[in-house]
Amino acid sequence: MSQADQTLAHGATDLRQLLSGIADDLAAVERRLQSELHSRVPQVDEVVRHGYRLGGKRLRPALVLLAGQAAGGLTDEHLVLSAVVEMIHTATLVHDDVLDEADLRRHEDTVNARWGNETSVLLGDFLFSHAFYLASTTGSAEACQTIGRATNTVCEGEMQQTLSEGDFDLSQDDYLAIITAKTAELCACCCELGARQAGADDATVERFASFGRNLGVAFQIADDLLDLMSDEEATGKTTGADLAKRKMTLPLIHARDALVNGPRANFVDLLATADVERIRAQVKLMGSLDYANRTAADYARRAAADLAELPDNPALQSLVGLANFAAARSS
Amino acid sequence: MSQADQTLAHGATDLRQLLSGIADDLAAVERRLQSELHSRVPQVDEVVRHGYRLGGKRLRPALVLLAGQAAGGLTDEHLVLSAVVEMIHTATLVHDDVLDEADLRRHEDTVNARWGNETSVLLGDFLFSHAFYLASTTGSAEACQTIGRATNTVCEGEMQQTLSEGDFDLSQDDYLAIITAKTAELCACCCELGARQAGADDATVERFASFGRNLGVAFQIADDLLDLMSDEEATGKTTGADLAKRKMTLPLIHARDALVNGPRANFVDLLATADVERIRAQVKLMGSLDYANRTAADYARRAAADLAELPDNPALQSLVGLANFAAARSS
Repeated sequence: MSQADQTLAHGATDLRQLLSGIADDLAAVERRLQSELHSRVPQVDEVVRHGYRLGGKRLRPALVLLAGQAAGGLTDEHLVLSAVVEMIHTATLVHDDVLDEADLRRHEDTVNARWGNETSVLLGDFLFSHAFYLASTTGSAEACQTIGRATNTVCEGEMQQTLSEGDFDLSQDDYLAIITAKTAELCACCCELGARQAGADDATVERFASFGRNLGVAFQIADDLLDLMSDEEATGKTTGADLAKRKMTLPLIHARDALVNGPRANFVDLLATADVERIRAQVKLMGSLDYANRTAADYARRAAADLAELPDNPALQSLVGLANFAAARSS
Repeated sequence: MSQADQTLAHGATDLRQLLSGIADDLAAVERRLQSELHSRVPQVDEVVRHGYRLGGKRLRPALVLLAGQAAGGLTDEHLVLSAVVEMIHTATLVHDDVLDEADLRRHEDTVNARWGNETSVLLGDFLFSHAFYLASTTGSAEACQTIGRATNTVCEGEMQQTLSEGDFDLSQDDYLAIITAKTAELCACCCELGARQAGADDATVERFASFGRNLGVAFQIADDLLDLMSDEEATGKTTGADLAKRKMTLPLIHARDALVNGPRANFVDLLATADVERIRAQVKLMGSLDYANRTAADYARRAAADLAELPDNPALQSLVGLANFAAARSS
């Protein structure tokens, strides 16, 4: 077993353990997602059910549920809101797929490819609107507002990122602003919803929201590192997608900023080639992987600090464990 | 001046007159849209402001406002909800553009084209999520639910339509189900919101919703007729887009169903060629334009009947006028 495999297996065990206190609730969320996502039109039903299966690690429902448990206990509304945030996350994944399908189109029959693209856009819209509908069934306009505002920030962040593609001068501050908007805001929203719904006061809700935001930044830094460094065979994911899209991430920004004049210009030229092997070698040499890993760990520590003064309980411990897991994950 | 031009000019005057009682409120909605649609990120701001300019005839805000006036009087929330429904409508327009850009891509530099596509998807998502956020600021979870449900139905209808492209056997019932979902539900939602917010009782709200639904069906039948029959130079719109996308509309369905055996098969073959001139000639010959016009007028009559038993007032008259305008419009 390689070092990476061991970390992976260890990580998976850790994660299962961290989520053991909400295993039944996560299963209930799964059932709720399955029962919500259907259509009376058979053709449409097929597409919508496929959307359900696209979902990810259910990290966001876990945040709602653990924050709820940690802040006072779970209600039926926690399950509904967990399904809502997962639907929103899936909608963003589906719309990301539109762009991947766009790549494939160059080698495929155009009409078929357009059909896929069109359906992906509409399925994402269906998931977004169903999520907002479902949120409103809790009767809480406040929850709707929290979710609407966070989702809007996610879209703003994704747009900023898209418009920054090819900008090799992107600053670290702008990078952090982008990942805070596109990833961390929804994690903050999950924790805020979980705590608020459990009856926590404003100050406590704000701590949970800040925890989620810091966890989200750590998660995205680690995600970007994985895209650059992971072994394709081990993770089953394409490596170097960010480089191919000319997207700046933290290790690249760090390596660039450690260089001046000619070497800096050479490094930017290297980035423009999207040559994964050579870029990996260069960022390792510059200590930029360590820097990115340390930064992710630092955000996980900030996340833990956000909860440090709250009364301790197992769910709170799990949240802190989840933040560490997010910063150090290997898949 | 041709017959069509006269109708157009006449129609525009009529429309201005129908909306004269809410002119100030429509201007306030315009200001609200402009003040809501911005971003703290300059690059994103440019895209979002462009989204605002894409808006259409502001039919949907007019429905919210007239229904509100007719059902008891306008509140500040009517202006907010008017901005919300227009944002949702604009989001669907922006996502429709994604597909048009997809066509252009065959002749354009791929990277530029993909940038456009990507930004369109994200701008649409931004508009959707901002609309839901804005709806929640009214404090009414019920309004959020009405809007979320209607938007979800719109997406379902658009998906059903997309999945039906190329199905020349589409029944009239399925056609009506599609346009009810993709167009009429949002019009029903506008009237429902307007009446509910004005304090109308459940039975009255239901009449307004039904009015909006019937108006919406009339509007979409007329819209589809325009796509088939309008003079490109007069309207500035591309003619025959539905034929190019192999989308069945009411006159085509009527002509097809009036034929059997060989002639029917020949007509379906003709549809597959998307030859606008020959298809126009054929549907005229079959009386199918008259049929579609009569059907639109019939839905406008049903819309008027929905309001017939309510206490009369100028706003109610304007709504009935708007339904007739929607069924008979020439642009």
